[in-house]
Amino acid sequence: MTNPPYKLASRELHPADTVVKVKDVEIGGNKIVVMAGPCAIESEEVLLEAAKAVKVAGAKVLRASAFKPRSSPYSFQGMGEEGLKLLKKVGEKTGIVTETEVMDTRDVSLVADYVDILRIGARNMQNFNLLKEVGKSGKPVILKNGVSATLDEFLLAAEYLLSEGNKDVILCYRGIRTFEPAIRFPIDAAMIPLIKEKTHLPLIVDPSHSTGIRILVAPVSKAAIAAGADGLIVEVHPCPEKALCDPKQQLLPEQFKKLMFDLSKVAKAVGRSL
Amino acid sequence: MTNPPYKLASRELHPADTVVKVKDVEIGGNKIVVMAGPCAIESEEVLLEAAKAVKVAGAKVLRASAFKPRSSPYSFQGMGEEGLKLLKKVGEKTGIVTETEVMDTRDVSLVADYVDILRIGARNMQNFNLLKEVGKSGKPVILKNGVSATLDEFLLAAEYLLSEGNKDVILCYRGIRTFEPAIRFPIDAAMIPLIKEKTHLPLIVDPSHSTGIRILVAPVSKAAIAAGADGLIVEVHPCPEKALCDPKQQLLPEQFKKLMFDLSKVAKAVGRSL
Amino acid sequence: MTNPPYKLASRELHPADTVVKVKDVEIGGNKIVVMAGPCAIESEEVLLEAAKAVKVAGAKVLRASAFKPRSSPYSFQGMGEEGLKLLKKVGEKTGIVTETEVMDTRDVSLVADYVDILRIGARNMQNFNLLKEVGKSGKPVILKNGVSATLDEFLLAAEYLLSEGNKDVILCYRGIRTFEPAIRFPIDAAMIPLIKEKTHLPLIVDPSHSTGIRILVAPVSKAAIAAGADGLIVEVHPCPEKALCDPKQQLLPEQFKKLMFDLSKVAKAVGRSL
Amino acid sequence: MTNPPYKLASRELHPADTVVKVKDVEIGGNKIVVMAGPCAIESEEVLLEAAKAVKVAGAKVLRASAFKPRSSPYSFQGMGEEGLKLLKKVGEKTGIVTETEVMDTRDVSLVADYVDILRIGARNMQNFNLLKEVGKSGKPVILKNGVSATLDEFLLAAEYLLSEGNKDVILCYRGIRTFEPAIRFPIDAAMIPLIKEKTHLPLIVDPSHSTGIRILVAPVSKAAIAAGADGLIVEVHPCPEKALCDPKQQLLPEQFKKLMFDLSKVAKAVGRSL
Repeated sequence: MTNPPYKLASRELHPADTVVKVKDVEIGGNKIVVMAGPCAIESEEVLLEAAKAVKVAGAKVLRASAFKPRSSPYSFQGMGEEGLKLLKKVGEKTGIVTETEVMDTRDVSLVADYVDILRIGARNMQNFNLLKEVGKSGKPVILKNGVSATLDEFLLAAEYLLSEGNKDVILCYRGIRTFEPAIRFPIDAAMIPLIKEKTHLPLIVDPSHSTGIRILVAPVSKAAIAAGADGLIVEVHPCPEKALCDPKQQLLPEQFKKLMFDLSKVAKAVGRSL
Repeated sequence: MTNPPYKLASRELHPADTVVKVKDVEIGGNKIVVMAGPCAIESEEVLLEAAKAVKVAGAKVLRASAFKPRSSPYSFQGMGEEGLKLLKKVGEKTGIVTETEVMDTRDVSLVADYVDILRIGARNMQNFNLLKEVGKSGKPVILKNGVSATLDEFLLAAEYLLSEGNKDVILCYRGIRTFEPAIRFPIDAAMIPLIKEKTHLPLIVDPSHSTGIRILVAPVSKAAIAAGADGLIVEVHPCPEKALCDPKQQLLPEQFKKLMFDLSKVAKAVGRSL
Repeated sequence: MTNPPYKLASRELHPADTVVKVKDVEIGGNKIVVMAGPCAIESEEVLLEAAKAVKVAGAKVLRASAFKPRSSPYSFQGMGEEGLKLLKKVGEKTGIVTETEVMDTRDVSLVADYVDILRIGARNMQNFNLLKEVGKSGKPVILKNGVSATLDEFLLAAEYLLSEGNKDVILCYRGIRTFEPAIRFPIDAAMIPLIKEKTHLPLIVDPSHSTGIRILVAPVSKAAIAAGADGLIVEVHPCPEKALCDPKQQLLPEQFKKLMFDLSKVAKAVGRSL
Repeated sequence: MTNPPYKLASRELHPADTVVKVKDVEIGGNKIVVMAGPCAIESEEVLLEAAKAVKVAGAKVLRASAFKPRSSPYSFQGMGEEGLKLLKKVGEKTGIVTETEVMDTRDVSLVADYVDILRIGARNMQNFNLLKEVGKSGKPVILKNGVSATLDEFLLAAEYLLSEGNKDVILCYRGIRTFEPAIRFPIDAAMIPLIKEKTHLPLIVDPSHSTGIRILVAPVSKAAIAAGADGLIVEVHPCPEKALCDPKQQLLPEQFKKLMFDLSKVAKAVGRSL
């Protein structure tokens, strides 16, 4: 694919960094933005506890999913609209910006009513009708790369969002599928500066879904910031072993607090702040 | 993923081959079924010409897309409902069974009104809401594997369709993404007997999108039948160089006719017929 | 890598098929050549039994390894020169052409003294000094592709052999490494005609090491012949469950006999014979 | 491969970090060790200039290849023993520790006579006879991972070296082959802490051969240190555009100096020093 056909996403045509502003949070500026929260919305109590914990540790956005794309039809599919209501409530109570996944063209306006930032998951990166619908919604959106998408395909998916008039597109690199059985979705360290070279859009990294292993989350987070990422999206749960999904990768609140402290040093080492 | 969690798709639990019947066509029986037609619906003339050509050569199903998932928002996106109408018309005129892709949950009942078989493309293999909606439609469906989906993920996607009560599920293996730059989506020859071992569902192979190169379509088609596939889905266009997409992989009608003749010999060699 | 830099291997520069003649066996002609035998040389009895069984079933070359490349230093490393002696003896007794792997530049002339055809394994495809030494030996050689080698790299490795003056180069496609956990080394069906398009060298396929699963050997063998391969190299052992390596993939003699019968039909279907 | 069969390489069986001492350089301790130098040895002048430049910038080891594994037989194959002599001379003149690649079992003692550290390249990671010979040499050795080797295979290759009695094994992670065309060999950020978890051996990272693109070398280097690597091996050339290989990835001396300054800050942020 010579002469990459993305235009609105291209750094060459739009040299200045895009900064996405959501309430008082700026994503893509000098400050590193960390989004954190449980994998799924499970109950008001757990969500509120998680929200308070990540906010006090310095997270600026609460992540939590009400609609869960699951490989098996027999796995927990998420709380749906009930979950969205809880997320809105917890966001208002704690004053934290919220984000959640949207999976279905029919749900875009519903989800947009409840949260600050929409998220398009890896499996839907080339669900083009969903991209168009979210593009039209005008809501800030996090777009995750498909695990076997090339860089060009990823930026063309962003182009779908941008070409519908949505300028508030945040890319999220969550790793790729490889032959290695020991790591779920390797985070290619070189992809971070390469994406920043090719596009002006802000870039965050997901160290939780990519590694799938708790002890790898902190080193990958540090690597991502050292390599030039603008932020992270990290899974944190008050009690991971009771979590309804991803129990092995969600950090405990105290682990997240320690991570934020360590990240502030790495951020400073590369001329940024947390 | 030990003890694969698919149940309804499992050969172990359902030893007998599933045969999907669509009008007078049986997919998954002893007879090899070939589906053929242009990549996209472009006009009534082209579609009718293609339909006649593939039918006379022995194809039992006319394939053609009205909704096109395209990596770039600037590529031809398909004729939409207009195309569906042409497909229905051509199907009635020629008496051939029709199939087409559905990409959006909102379009399932619309598409189901116009064609005999729905198709879920590789990019939507884990668009779970679409799977559920198509599962509910009761229409025969072709499910393509995602290009980086594992076998377990592929069969779990089929499980989504089956668990909604749809028994008429046809799997389509269209290859996987690898490091090799010379071939778009390699068809793993071993995957064909392995899928047949793991599931009772019929399996067809797509030699056109997998190779992307016209001269490779015939040898890959023969290999697929020799390895145990129940059918093929092949792109044929009366004038490939004028096609709106995939000009390099669509066969000419006379090439398709020759392929069908050659395939009949390979089918016979493995105890089947065309 | 535009304008592939292989020259002597190039079909474009050398349009006519190369036929490698070893005693009365011709590899690369109209007749399909099957090589077969145990993974490793274990004892004279087992080797002789295997040799007789594969010869009577129609195999033209006896395969068996005296030097075994093993991932772990604690696995059986092969019988070494003792094994070579047995192979030579069994070859003479049964009148079958022999082949075996050579792994070390220092062993090339030793191995060349004992067998008819040298084999360079997948792990040594880019052991360039070994390629040069085998190129100089003048012995017919089977070159296996590295499991993550691109087509260009594979043909360039052959170029190393050819550029030392060795014209008797047989390519062996043994599959590639991918993300799929269910299959060891997928055989890309399209790679077979593509290799034949790019080079004039004979091409055989290894259905045993690629699949690693006994029941997949026959369908993959049929697919390879249907796709245009010039031959196969198949593991056969009189008693696989007692084999010192690869017990799960070696065929029993009666399975091999059945395979040869089935292959003769597929060969005929594509205009060739066994 | 359950219960990974490596023993001597296992962190579980040998919890304490191995520190490899070469003259006054310690690899695997708290201090980050950077190795640098030109891809190939081309002349005494260039090598001396490079050695001085990298030493003054803080590199502790001079890297440079006399034997070059090249995909094509028509590419520059290295200066051979002539190059080894130059490397030894320059090492003595500048007082820097030297390392170079060995590709052939027959060359191990020759190369060991000239340099301080042997290197086994990615293509030879499973050249088991070479591993055994280098294991016997008693020389410190850098072992690079094959680009499609799994973690277990990598550690088993190290086990070959260790099981011959060589304790001075340094692992070098140089990335893996994936489907992404934009990056040569992605460095999986998670692999760095995972390797450190699985083994006690020191681990360095190669940001030059993995990325193949000059502007990506610095961010990947920072990421590697942030993720826990013990060192780096970086290509630096006084005049990259005149280099006989890898002109697009070798850093200029001033770029390397800047990188070392930036790395010292990242090292400090993770509790280490340069």
